[in-house]
Amino acid sequence: MTSVEPSSAAPAIVRADGRSPDQLRPISITRGWSNQAEGSALIEFGNTRVLCTASVTAGVPRWLKGEGRGWVTAEYAMLPRATNTRSDRESVKGKIGGRTHEISRLIGRSLRSIIDLKALGENTIVLDCDVLQADGGTRTAAITGAYVALADALRWAKDNKLVARSASPLTDTVAAVSVGIIDGAPMLDLPYVEDVRAETDMNVVVTGSGQFVEVQGTAEGAPFDRDELNALLDLALAGTAQLAQIQRDTLAGTLAEVIRG
Amino acid sequence: MTSVEPSSAAPAIVRADGRSPDQLRPISITRGWSNQAEGSALIEFGNTRVLCTASVTAGVPRWLKGEGRGWVTAEYAMLPRATNTRSDRESVKGKIGGRTHEISRLIGRSLRSIIDLKALGENTIVLDCDVLQADGGTRTAAITGAYVALADALRWAKDNKLVARSASPLTDTVAAVSVGIIDGAPMLDLPYVEDVRAETDMNVVVTGSGQFVEVQGTAEGAPFDRDELNALLDLALAGTAQLAQIQRDTLAGTLAEVIRG
Amino acid sequence: MTSVEPSSAAPAIVRADGRSPDQLRPISITRGWSNQAEGSALIEFGNTRVLCTASVTAGVPRWLKGEGRGWVTAEYAMLPRATNTRSDRESVKGKIGGRTHEISRLIGRSLRSIIDLKALGENTIVLDCDVLQADGGTRTAAITGAYVALADALRWAKDNKLVARSASPLTDTVAAVSVGIIDGAPMLDLPYVEDVRAETDMNVVVTGSGQFVEVQGTAEGAPFDRDELNALLDLALAGTAQLAQIQRDTLAGTLAEVIRG
Amino acid sequence: MTSVEPSSAAPAIVRADGRSPDQLRPISITRGWSNQAEGSALIEFGNTRVLCTASVTAGVPRWLKGEGRGWVTAEYAMLPRATNTRSDRESVKGKIGGRTHEISRLIGRSLRSIIDLKALGENTIVLDCDVLQADGGTRTAAITGAYVALADALRWAKDNKLVARSASPLTDTVAAVSVGIIDGAPMLDLPYVEDVRAETDMNVVVTGSGQFVEVQGTAEGAPFDRDELNALLDLALAGTAQLAQIQRDTLAGTLAEVIRG
Amino acid sequence: MTSVEPSSAAPAIVRADGRSPDQLRPISITRGWSNQAEGSALIEFGNTRVLCTASVTAGVPRWLKGEGRGWVTAEYAMLPRATNTRSDRESVKGKIGGRTHEISRLIGRSLRSIIDLKALGENTIVLDCDVLQADGGTRTAAITGAYVALADALRWAKDNKLVARSASPLTDTVAAVSVGIIDGAPMLDLPYVEDVRAETDMNVVVTGSGQFVEVQGTAEGAPFDRDELNALLDLALAGTAQLAQIQRDTLAGTLAEVIRG
Amino acid sequence: MTSVEPSSAAPAIVRADGRSPDQLRPISITRGWSNQAEGSALIEFGNTRVLCTASVTAGVPRWLKGEGRGWVTAEYAMLPRATNTRSDRESVKGKIGGRTHEISRLIGRSLRSIIDLKALGENTIVLDCDVLQADGGTRTAAITGAYVALADALRWAKDNKLVARSASPLTDTVAAVSVGIIDGAPMLDLPYVEDVRAETDMNVVVTGSGQFVEVQGTAEGAPFDRDELNALLDLALAGTAQLAQIQRDTLAGTLAEVIRG
Repeated sequence: MTSVEPSSAAPAIVRADGRSPDQLRPISITRGWSNQAEGSALIEFGNTRVLCTASVTAGVPRWLKGEGRGWVTAEYAMLPRATNTRSDRESVKGKIGGRTHEISRLIGRSLRSIIDLKALGENTIVLDCDVLQADGGTRTAAITGAYVALADALRWAKDNKLVARSASPLTDTVAAVSVGIIDGAPMLDLPYVEDVRAETDMNVVVTGSGQFVEVQGTAEGAPFDRDELNALLDLALAGTAQLAQIQRDTLAGTLAEVIRG
Repeated sequence: MTSVEPSSAAPAIVRADGRSPDQLRPISITRGWSNQAEGSALIEFGNTRVLCTASVTAGVPRWLKGEGRGWVTAEYAMLPRATNTRSDRESVKGKIGGRTHEISRLIGRSLRSIIDLKALGENTIVLDCDVLQADGGTRTAAITGAYVALADALRWAKDNKLVARSASPLTDTVAAVSVGIIDGAPMLDLPYVEDVRAETDMNVVVTGSGQFVEVQGTAEGAPFDRDELNALLDLALAGTAQLAQIQRDTLAGTLAEVIRG
Repeated sequence: MTSVEPSSAAPAIVRADGRSPDQLRPISITRGWSNQAEGSALIEFGNTRVLCTASVTAGVPRWLKGEGRGWVTAEYAMLPRATNTRSDRESVKGKIGGRTHEISRLIGRSLRSIIDLKALGENTIVLDCDVLQADGGTRTAAITGAYVALADALRWAKDNKLVARSASPLTDTVAAVSVGIIDGAPMLDLPYVEDVRAETDMNVVVTGSGQFVEVQGTAEGAPFDRDELNALLDLALAGTAQLAQIQRDTLAGTLAEVIRG
Repeated sequence: MTSVEPSSAAPAIVRADGRSPDQLRPISITRGWSNQAEGSALIEFGNTRVLCTASVTAGVPRWLKGEGRGWVTAEYAMLPRATNTRSDRESVKGKIGGRTHEISRLIGRSLRSIIDLKALGENTIVLDCDVLQADGGTRTAAITGAYVALADALRWAKDNKLVARSASPLTDTVAAVSVGIIDGAPMLDLPYVEDVRAETDMNVVVTGSGQFVEVQGTAEGAPFDRDELNALLDLALAGTAQLAQIQRDTLAGTLAEVIRG
Repeated sequence: MTSVEPSSAAPAIVRADGRSPDQLRPISITRGWSNQAEGSALIEFGNTRVLCTASVTAGVPRWLKGEGRGWVTAEYAMLPRATNTRSDRESVKGKIGGRTHEISRLIGRSLRSIIDLKALGENTIVLDCDVLQADGGTRTAAITGAYVALADALRWAKDNKLVARSASPLTDTVAAVSVGIIDGAPMLDLPYVEDVRAETDMNVVVTGSGQFVEVQGTAEGAPFDRDELNALLDLALAGTAQLAQIQRDTLAGTLAEVIRG
Repeated sequence: MTSVEPSSAAPAIVRADGRSPDQLRPISITRGWSNQAEGSALIEFGNTRVLCTASVTAGVPRWLKGEGRGWVTAEYAMLPRATNTRSDRESVKGKIGGRTHEISRLIGRSLRSIIDLKALGENTIVLDCDVLQADGGTRTAAITGAYVALADALRWAKDNKLVARSASPLTDTVAAVSVGIIDGAPMLDLPYVEDVRAETDMNVVVTGSGQFVEVQGTAEGAPFDRDELNALLDLALAGTAQLAQIQRDTLAGTLAEVIRG
């Protein structure tokens, strides 16, 4: 298990949990938490706890057959009592809610942004991100943890000859973090109590080389201006850089086997 | 009907439809296209054609009762043959897809960002945005057209004493536009042929006063850097400023009756 | 656009909208309203406004494969605010209501009655009839408009070599109209205000040569006798004869290319 | 059990089962087949066998509350192996098909045509018509049998003081029969083998006093003319008159207690 | 029709319906009640009445293809008014309840326990058990009746050359009965009034040779001890032995053709 | 965390994992694994890992209102990759499978067997049992773990005055274990590899005082006789006695506060 207490350079404003505005919550990644999946990680951003598994199968969906490319997709869900009050199961309601759909699609796009589907070959990887405990930032934890599960699944695919030994299907790492403006101050990695109070809320997905994959900013309260947007992006870039380092430390030698030099 | 051929200051690159990179498609808003709804607009962004209706009902959903606030929500859908090939109806499939959910939620949030729910009182407004013909930018056309339907519905609500004569439920106008990077060049208001080729695709929702409500940027192909992000935001701000002017021209005197000073 | 103010021979009773009992509402057909479908028509019976599109695809459903025959089917739906008060979307409810099913099936049967499925070859045509604004008679407007979309789609199928140049897949024209008894008097083409008051309500589908395809009469209030039935059928035959003429005028030369001599 | 071998006046054409064109199949009604429902009848039209139950509950659906009127509705369904090959259950498919919806609505309307909802008071009667064995004419058998179950349920409602002793909620009897044109000849009460060959197929619902409640004629093969329509209506009126007599015989004294003088 | 009034050796306690604790209700099996299915039986345990049909089709589900084995499965359902108060249809609710699922699976497993799927060959038999009238013990009546329908379907399969003339696909008979403890006393074959009062309720499925296929005991009220369990099993074995005899009498010569010597 | 290596008295047959036939797998219960629920436990039976949470809410379902009794219910589910190959999510399929329904109902009944709903008062407790990793015996682990979550939830309910300080809502403990016959030998607590090979498979739910709550035995291969049944029940009673001790050790002092003296 990689467990890290991120440090902070900036002081001043102190948050409910004692962090400075630009500080991540304690991050922990337990690699291989599940013994069934080809890759898995239990990731924690503070009290948010997401189980990410990667399932590899030979072959691709029908619409992709014969193109010589693979497919990576994701499904996000929350246990009914991951949150402070119990929610009805989507299986019981018989339909998936808009929020679930939206986050599943976001995770899928984010992971596809750093994978070379040609190098993956005609294989499919499904990333299941199940929130066991929720305290804000579940989608960003899911993306960050799914990357670790994906890397391990790719190594498994190589070990099992589904992917060529010489292939480097990953083009980079990818991680995500939430940022927001609370009482006028930009802050990094919001727990639930901050999230509900944020005037603006943004989820940012960034590659290991510091480029944007997704920028999703929403004015929950008041619209935001260009300066606020820029301050949030600065925080997000710093935060995802730290997460990328934790991912690399967690995966250690494995990453080199599956990522492009 | 307000029909405008937007002008352009920038030359150089010429697009398939003859526009310059910073030029909107021809925009047309036919106010009151439906005689059943309290407010309605048929909006066209080039060949994209969306019918927006606003339905007003007294009362609010159960979870909001007794709070003295109203509610505004939206539903987006596409006719099966709005697109080049026919899609199955979501009613026939028995469930709503992720994309539909995502866009419905985006439209709802965007419109709520410029409405004072207290001033609306305990009334509900549902904005239905049905795409009759699709050629890229359907969600941005929907937001821009829904604003016009919403303003008319608010005037109706005042005329019918659901909203106090003195109330100004709208705090601003709101409009949206898509921007993207195609062959390395940032471009405004993408039709379908450009949209599918875009490396990065961004939908930006902006108030009449030029502040951001939503920034949703996605790297479809390659991740994007800070400079590219900034170039796209510049285009989007210029485009939404033109749309805001068209909205004001379309609504003319009506807007003054329902918008804050 | 073909727009016609139908004339009347009979006087006496004057209806709310000034028509005589045997007079159609103003009929308008805008051919090619959609630029995506192979055939399309926006049809208006007074304030009832239905968008009909015809989608052609090569091949037939599995149960029809290898029989050398094509297939024509229809789907009817209403926008949520086509009516005076908003209805929930069937996609949101997750199921299609009985009325929608019933009308979709009626439209499909009606159009199949005048098409030679052998001459169509192994091609499928789906007719989507979406009610944009409803004021009574939506199913009859849908059938009448779908015919125009179908004829254009057949011409497209010939131009694109899906149907043999020498084939004449249409055997006749087909149109539909509603009739009913209101306060004891038989009347043609009922708008909503008359429809809800009708003791008996009948939808009649008739070919261009004046033969019946469907006769669906329902005693909404009191049962009806043979004389009343006959009076209604007389009105319906006269009304559909006028509609057939409007269809022919609208399609002009195109019809000759696809209809049996 | 009332079991009748209907006689025929017309000779000439002999059908596969030996009947003349204007002859009903053997009709049998077993009243009170179920000991759970307030009224029930197992009705047989030849090999078609439908179990009809009537369930009475005090109160009405929400949309009818406080109007002093009752409600009668119907649900039709078929056992999976009622037919020659097994069909999937609609409960397993998770949705009701168009045909089921259509027939349920037809049965409901037919029974409501001869009931005085005011006299019923604020009570609801649900008629369940489940086809145990199908051989054509299931919807017409269902209507005819449901009437018997309804009459018994009304007597129960009187005995149990839900309906006033002095009330006569039934205004008439109602029965239904299918007619069709086979090889150019009009025929009464079609079994499955005739039904699939019919060029025109019509279901006619008629009151005991000989007035029409529903006329639903469909050209399955070729469109039909006025003369054919008239011949079919003549057959249907004669057939339903016989069915009305059987209903009266079956219900004997009970009918007098619940029907209007 | 085989109709039997089971006799009893034990006296003492007399039940509401006059039976002794170890006595079955009157059992009746009407073989071939449906003329559509390959095998069918209307079985009655007192007032409980279940229609069992067996549908044979050549071929097996996809997951079993090419294994040289057949498949037997079951679906259980209840008519809405089989019970004392009406239940909503599962087709209308759009989903199957847990109880229905559970019983369908139980029936399927029970019948598969006495069939040699190899001897059946690549054929599928679906057993539909529809409860027409319910008075306790519907699942045990369904299993017992389905066996009769299955045996007839196997003979049909032999007559129609789907199953080899020399094959004996049945390895034994199978029947089921409910037992329970009421006011401390173990009782056999509970009708509804006893079932709701039972402290412990058990359904036992037993082969003709007296071996257990399913033992499903549930403490509805108080937990039960080993002695009570044994007393219930004794009753069940005696009851199912009688049912096995009735099955053999009903099937007479047919059974010998399809059962293993 | 309580973690126990159960000992065995019986020798002879050695199983794949080295256990003797009457030995449980290593059992571990991590109490309070979730910080959101009122009670929670992560329970492990070997590699089977189930997260059990108990959610308390004041009030009861509508059908129980005003009776002065509470309600306890359960929902069981499996993560898509809890198993060796990935299963589709039930939320995505839009319906819950029969197996899920069956197990949810079993867990609910089992827990209700040892709770005094009167003493609980008008409160509802939902037990969510989510299988994070599956290796056989998931339903028995779920019941055993849910008991621990339930006990903690009851203590919480007392601390928060929903349940009277003097009340003892639990009447006993309850635990469950699977047993089966493999190659003719009865064995306790089957992992997946044994479960699929078992001729007979039985799940037994037993109270702390050694009485049966559920006995669910199924002949997967060959029917079983009375001696085999007895041998399996002996094993189950011994196994559940050990589990009851582990539950008591885990809950320590807490149990005394909520269980009947």
